[in-house]
Amino acid sequence: MAGMVLDITAGAVALTEALVDLESVSLNERPIADAIESVLRPLDHLEVTRIGNSLVARTDLGRGERVVIAGHIDTVPVNANLPCRNDGTHLHGLGTCDMKAGVAVGLRLAAGVPEPNRDVTYVFYECEEIDAVHNGLRKIAEDRPDLVEADFAILMEPSDAAVEAGCQGTLRVDVRTHGERAHSARSWKGVNAIHKAAEVLRRLNEYDARRPVIDGLEYHEGLNAVMISGGVATNVLPDEAVVTVNYRFAPDRSEAEALEYVREFFDGFDVTLTDSAPGALPGLDVPAAKAFVESVGGEVKPKFGWTDVARFSGLGVPAVNFGPGDPSLAHKQEEHVPIAQIERCEQVLRTWLGDR
Amino acid sequence: MAGMVLDITAGAVALTEALVDLESVSLNERPIADAIESVLRPLDHLEVTRIGNSLVARTDLGRGERVVIAGHIDTVPVNANLPCRNDGTHLHGLGTCDMKAGVAVGLRLAAGVPEPNRDVTYVFYECEEIDAVHNGLRKIAEDRPDLVEADFAILMEPSDAAVEAGCQGTLRVDVRTHGERAHSARSWKGVNAIHKAAEVLRRLNEYDARRPVIDGLEYHEGLNAVMISGGVATNVLPDEAVVTVNYRFAPDRSEAEALEYVREFFDGFDVTLTDSAPGALPGLDVPAAKAFVESVGGEVKPKFGWTDVARFSGLGVPAVNFGPGDPSLAHKQEEHVPIAQIERCEQVLRTWLGDR
Repeated sequence: MAGMVLDITAGAVALTEALVDLESVSLNERPIADAIESVLRPLDHLEVTRIGNSLVARTDLGRGERVVIAGHIDTVPVNANLPCRNDGTHLHGLGTCDMKAGVAVGLRLAAGVPEPNRDVTYVFYECEEIDAVHNGLRKIAEDRPDLVEADFAILMEPSDAAVEAGCQGTLRVDVRTHGERAHSARSWKGVNAIHKAAEVLRRLNEYDARRPVIDGLEYHEGLNAVMISGGVATNVLPDEAVVTVNYRFAPDRSEAEALEYVREFFDGFDVTLTDSAPGALPGLDVPAAKAFVESVGGEVKPKFGWTDVARFSGLGVPAVNFGPGDPSLAHKQEEHVPIAQIERCEQVLRTWLGDR
Repeated sequence: MAGMVLDITAGAVALTEALVDLESVSLNERPIADAIESVLRPLDHLEVTRIGNSLVARTDLGRGERVVIAGHIDTVPVNANLPCRNDGTHLHGLGTCDMKAGVAVGLRLAAGVPEPNRDVTYVFYECEEIDAVHNGLRKIAEDRPDLVEADFAILMEPSDAAVEAGCQGTLRVDVRTHGERAHSARSWKGVNAIHKAAEVLRRLNEYDARRPVIDGLEYHEGLNAVMISGGVATNVLPDEAVVTVNYRFAPDRSEAEALEYVREFFDGFDVTLTDSAPGALPGLDVPAAKAFVESVGGEVKPKFGWTDVARFSGLGVPAVNFGPGDPSLAHKQEEHVPIAQIERCEQVLRTWLGDR
């Protein structure tokens, strides 16, 4: 992978294909970050900073407005869906949708629009798909908050090339059951902690998702076991089982309210918070957001997935999601992206940045 | 650990303590096997063979009868229960009960009874606590069946210093649930395989154990999840979960019948057999067994745990369990053994072997 050269001139579609084939599961972004850096470094109109495996590239033209265009460069684990396949209308493969097509568009703009009508801060960052503690955008905001100051931000997360506003929050808890070890040949002498997890899973099966409407947008919550583990040895009654549960909550709930809900849901069990990130309210009343929405064409949908829109929101920068790809295909084995949406996103943003 | 010297003359209790402190979790028996070998090799009255980390030591006095005295030298994983602690009446710690006290008695007999009234084959073997494929006694029986030919065998598994007859069989299956991955923020687009495991665990909670009476002995079956796993990433709906289930079945069921029972129990799920070992009927009608039972004092109990009694049974050698320690404490954190039982077992066997 080292030394991979990205051909920025071959178009956003070919560039997406190259980025997809540059496997970059979270915590393994060095090769793709190296490749992106080697595109950005030679460009005289950009000031480039690398932090870990994240890159920030800024124009500095003294414009009256500064906007961020950002995308993460990592993916979820490979699921027999590499390399990239182009069937003429769609690109198929891991990361085509979430979100290397968006990264390709961002890179094309960074390289191909040297004099935008607004100053632009491009951010290509690592570790969005795993624990918030690793998140590259978080690290940039902590180490160099000056680098991400802006009036408005666009995250190129998949949104079917339309504007998706706000985002749901996410938190994760470990729900633990306890038992007592014993030899499995005399199981009546112990207490099986895995069997106790039946009740945890039963409640999850009965969960009824809340769907609140906020600023005219209907959000949709979710409560799911994403991991389960337990067991000491194959002839020992296990004394512990852990169900890792992910709660996706609408942005009218704070992190504290969301945690309280989960604790009540699993009342009687040992619940430990392991990860939490707030949602973001749609925020469409901010002037910069309104202007962008109008330039795209007006339609706005709710964002279900957590995105770093919430992180920008926390930094006081209004932000929306806008990128190629159906967000419901993200993290699915058959992930793909329509070629037309890649092209549309690039065109919309070029126009918005004043490029002819 | 290498070079550890066991003092065989300090008595069976001190020897048990030394063996317990010589940590020997399955697949890590080399140090304890080395220590045992260094006791046996210098003894002129024994012919010693090492196979892997198992040892066979035989007298060859031309007696009319040959008996096996056997014990495994491995333990289940450490559970904050080392080193050995002697409170004056009991030894506490991993392996005190299952079954280093029995091994200590066997070693004392091997070294201290040079002219037994029956030829004796002592077997100290590895990997009894894990998959049958690793079992040291199995390897000896396959590689050198001549070494374990005998008229009768005593396994020094914990049995409260009384005779426990027969043993229950054991099999293990993986019960798999299937789903479809999706981003956990849009969980309605996928199918959560961990949630489907609720039904597997519900059935296990409703399991009603069979307790058949065979030759006057009441056995007690068990069906338990011993491992559970599932999960792809913390923001992905999992497409697979695996519940590993251990079935302990009374010796009136064959392995095939036991598997059929488990398949019906989990009807509708994907069930894969991963390990199986037959039970052994009590077999108390064999003359050699009768004679030993009488010499011990007559009381006989059923054996719940699987032991290599079944393996000897399969080789045509009648066998019983007889060793110090409460079998219901095996694999428990608070495992311990009464000092008086260690001493009683040694005395009973010395007398039976004609030692004064």
